[in-house]
Amino acid sequence: MPINLQIHLDNRPIGAAVATNFKQVSSATPALQDAEVLVQHHFLSLDPYMRGRMNDSKSYAAAQALGQVMGGGTAGVVVESRHAKYAVGDKVVGMGGWQQYSVVDGNALGAMRKVDTTNIPLSAYLGAVGMPGVTAWYGLMKICQPKAGETVVVSAASGAVGSVVGQLAKAKGCRVVGFAGGTDKCKYVVDELGFDACIDYKAFLDAKSLYKALKDVAPSGVDCYFENVGGAILDAVLSNMNAFGRIALCGMIAGYNGVPVPITQPQLFLMSRLTMRGFIVSEHMEHWPEALKELGGLVATGKLKFRESIAQGIESAPEAFLGLLSGKNFGKQLVKLV
Amino acid sequence: MPINLQIHLDNRPIGAAVATNFKQVSSATPALQDAEVLVQHHFLSLDPYMRGRMNDSKSYAAAQALGQVMGGGTAGVVVESRHAKYAVGDKVVGMGGWQQYSVVDGNALGAMRKVDTTNIPLSAYLGAVGMPGVTAWYGLMKICQPKAGETVVVSAASGAVGSVVGQLAKAKGCRVVGFAGGTDKCKYVVDELGFDACIDYKAFLDAKSLYKALKDVAPSGVDCYFENVGGAILDAVLSNMNAFGRIALCGMIAGYNGVPVPITQPQLFLMSRLTMRGFIVSEHMEHWPEALKELGGLVATGKLKFRESIAQGIESAPEAFLGLLSGKNFGKQLVKLV
Repeated sequence: MPINLQIHLDNRPIGAAVATNFKQVSSATPALQDAEVLVQHHFLSLDPYMRGRMNDSKSYAAAQALGQVMGGGTAGVVVESRHAKYAVGDKVVGMGGWQQYSVVDGNALGAMRKVDTTNIPLSAYLGAVGMPGVTAWYGLMKICQPKAGETVVVSAASGAVGSVVGQLAKAKGCRVVGFAGGTDKCKYVVDELGFDACIDYKAFLDAKSLYKALKDVAPSGVDCYFENVGGAILDAVLSNMNAFGRIALCGMIAGYNGVPVPITQPQLFLMSRLTMRGFIVSEHMEHWPEALKELGGLVATGKLKFRESIAQGIESAPEAFLGLLSGKNFGKQLVKLV
Repeated sequence: MPINLQIHLDNRPIGAAVATNFKQVSSATPALQDAEVLVQHHFLSLDPYMRGRMNDSKSYAAAQALGQVMGGGTAGVVVESRHAKYAVGDKVVGMGGWQQYSVVDGNALGAMRKVDTTNIPLSAYLGAVGMPGVTAWYGLMKICQPKAGETVVVSAASGAVGSVVGQLAKAKGCRVVGFAGGTDKCKYVVDELGFDACIDYKAFLDAKSLYKALKDVAPSGVDCYFENVGGAILDAVLSNMNAFGRIALCGMIAGYNGVPVPITQPQLFLMSRLTMRGFIVSEHMEHWPEALKELGGLVATGKLKFRESIAQGIESAPEAFLGLLSGKNFGKQLVKLV
């Protein structure tokens, strides 16, 4: 029985999340029952939605139970199997949580799926070819529905979701503008990902100056906005939206630490006849196969680029997660566990 | 040539609109050119959208020009005609503006249409069987799309738009809750219009107490919200919205006087996966015939009730309009001109 290091949620944040909300726990992996599979996690995915689950309040995600392993996506390798469908050595992705190993019921629908790492690295199944990639695909294709020639804006542009949004929109023939934090991220977004422009939001003090900066690089106005952030950036984009603009609301990380950031000019939704829709990609599973096929093909052929921030060891997960919430990551935040 | 009293926009509001923004002007009606029609207005419609047009800023409606007749819907009678399609005595509705007479080009597409007042009073073509009615119909049927058993909420419930929204939603088998200002309006909304409940928003101090009041009468949560008002009521409703709720954004009268009222908890759009869409009914003319047919039938058979606040004389239009902005009207605000 290998020893399994886990990170539990020990107590709920009051205001900002802090490292002491988490607790490291060690236990032995249990013996497998019939139809069960033991997976050794190679990568743990850290995602902004996890912050919402740390609260006890009404949220789109069920609250994370106290004293339990933090939930989260994992990519790993089968190390023991009592299920005919899974063999030792199989590469699998699932929701193994913040721990080194998980025991999975091989019969549970959707709990785990085998993946092919011939042309796609295992970690990508937690990013561009996983939940973040499908999130980008769904929000852009199904909510924003950009037409060639339109201007698409995405916040957190260098991140796991934003980077895919922008590259897909470029492939659709759109003008694409990103928001990212810092000159390095902005340079990457333009030079490597091919965005038309990127605004370093840290260089601007308020929504008004952000508004002007966006107006300079989106002179025809904004038709589609893929929102990962909220706050002043949302206000700045709203003021630049064209009539009949569409906003896919994927995240509001600016308000995750307990202080909601108001939309200061809601009348713009009326004046510009905007549509805004909040969504959670796990509620649209019917689109995953189509999205994953397209995303997998683009990654395998090098047409969809991505970048990862990789923390080492399960012990580093809490700090890496807090860093993600404050934008310290650069690309998809992962924890490497082996 | 009859004398034509007009109300012009003399200067733009700074903050709240005031009576001195308007000026009364008197002129003779001009001699008709070929194909022109002279209409004597019997009723002028006063509508909240007019406040937006008084500003010079970017708005959904083109700014009202200074020194010109205020624009607005009118219902009247043809008193002179040089167009074969129109005869003296014809009842017509159009956009004649804040004046006693207008000269209309009988060939201009959509400038004027003849109406039948056999079973429908002329004034209703400015209300339940006119722009406000179609606004209610479009927002409810095309954006909210309520299903039987769902809960529909509408603000300004006793008004020209809100009263139609609620009655149409009741006919669809929904639970319907209104917001209105004052016990008289609320009593009317429930007793006469058949809403299930009505909240007198003036009896509550803030969004939190409004939230609780709404929760009491909408215990299953809110599925559809037809928004005419904005401000604290919008915040209160947002907190009560069910997952996948739809918001048709028709008006934000709370912010019309120059001070935008923020949406304080935009994260609710994400948490509850809400869709909000702003719309202007004049941009959806393709739906007017269907809507007007249904609304006309309901009014003619007494199934759709409405109420009017009627000011007398063109001179009273500015005060009546300012009263409308502060909720002093009770039902559709009209000015009777004859």
